Amino acid sequence: MRTLVPFESTTPKTRLDGVLDADERRTFSRAMLRDVCTALRDAGHDAEVLATAPVSVDAPVTVDERPLSQAVNARLGDERVGIVVADLALVTPTAIDRLTDAASEADIAIAPGRGGGTNALVVDHPEFRVDFHGVSYRDHRAHARDIGASVSVVDSMRLATDVDVPADLVEVLLHGEGEAASWLREAGFELDADGGRVGVRRE
Amino acid sequence: MRTLVPFESTTPKTRLDGVLDADERRTFSRAMLRDVCTALRDAGHDAEVLATAPVSVDAPVTVDERPLSQAVNARLGDERVGIVVADLALVTPTAIDRLTDAASEADIAIAPGRGGGTNALVVDHPEFRVDFHGVSYRDHRAHARDIGASVSVVDSMRLATDVDVPADLVEVLLHGEGEAASWLREAGFELDADGGRVGVRRE
Repeated sequence: MRTLVPFESTTPKTRLDGVLDADERRTFSRAMLRDVCTALRDAGHDAEVLATAPVSVDAPVTVDERPLSQAVNARLGDERVGIVVADLALVTPTAIDRLTDAASEADIAIAPGRGGGTNALVVDHPEFRVDFHGVSYRDHRAHARDIGASVSVVDSMRLATDVDVPADLVEVLLHGEGEAASWLREAGFELDADGGRVGVRRE
Repeated sequence: MRTLVPFESTTPKTRLDGVLDADERRTFSRAMLRDVCTALRDAGHDAEVLATAPVSVDAPVTVDERPLSQAVNARLGDERVGIVVADLALVTPTAIDRLTDAASEADIAIAPGRGGGTNALVVDHPEFRVDFHGVSYRDHRAHARDIGASVSVVDSMRLATDVDVPADLVEVLLHGEGEAASWLREAGFELDADGGRVGVRRE
């Protein structure tokens, strides 16, 4: 299945600025992007990166400077299309399979992200359009209802965990199996279980 | 399957004190407990609440004042036993089915919680003991390796989402289908999408 992977190439992951400098955020975000593309390929799908500027990754890259939702919607139509965000450092081919399994049962498959976002979709309805702003999970479900499209929701921690803030790095260190997790470990990050809650510290 | 549901009856959910007073935290935590027991029953299992003090719920309650891990370990042995934490306000019978499906393939099934915790287990190995302190997901996996027990991990957002802090209430409002979600809505909580991140506000 053709699967779009939108990627902010220019100033990615600004909310990690407390723990990673700008160069590191660029490197780490690209590692996550590559993990997503690898998982898609290993699950048998054709990743197509939609980037705001050129980026090096083992998948076709299209540069589209429009806002995320607009760039995606320009590519939705009659054909079935997947959309997977680029910061899913926990993604595996098995998790992608669960997304496509859900898609086989409904017009729209959605994997919610933590905090009301939408982390992955499979769209198989000509009228469906995305809007990633705000509580997009709720809004996408409402939109599907409005156009009479059936929805299947994927209950996956791996797909729900997009990496935005330092607390999310705990999940990458614990469950990540790809390049992003390796990069974090090599950059000196490890779990910090000294306080009441588990966090990360850097050597 | 016999399934233990440990419950802190006395001062539950203290980290919600910024948004709920002590009485409300008691009420809300009991609603979550009932949701967990209902999901277990609807999935065909026998919930047994292990509480630090008596509590009213439609399931057998055993009062055990020992620390959580000790109270659970006193009930592990030769028989297969499930353990599900009491603050899974997003749990459904389907999510419980995924836990038991995983258990059919391994000695130990684990559903990780966000932040390194363990939110649900099925234990079918006579030597396995729990320790919910610290990075318990990692520690439970290491312990299983040490005793030669096979492990199957359940990738579920619903099982990964224990409700501890105000940000978790977003997930309850979005995905909860039981008494806890209804109680929150009746208490005036709703999603707040005004800022950059989605939060909750109270009317």
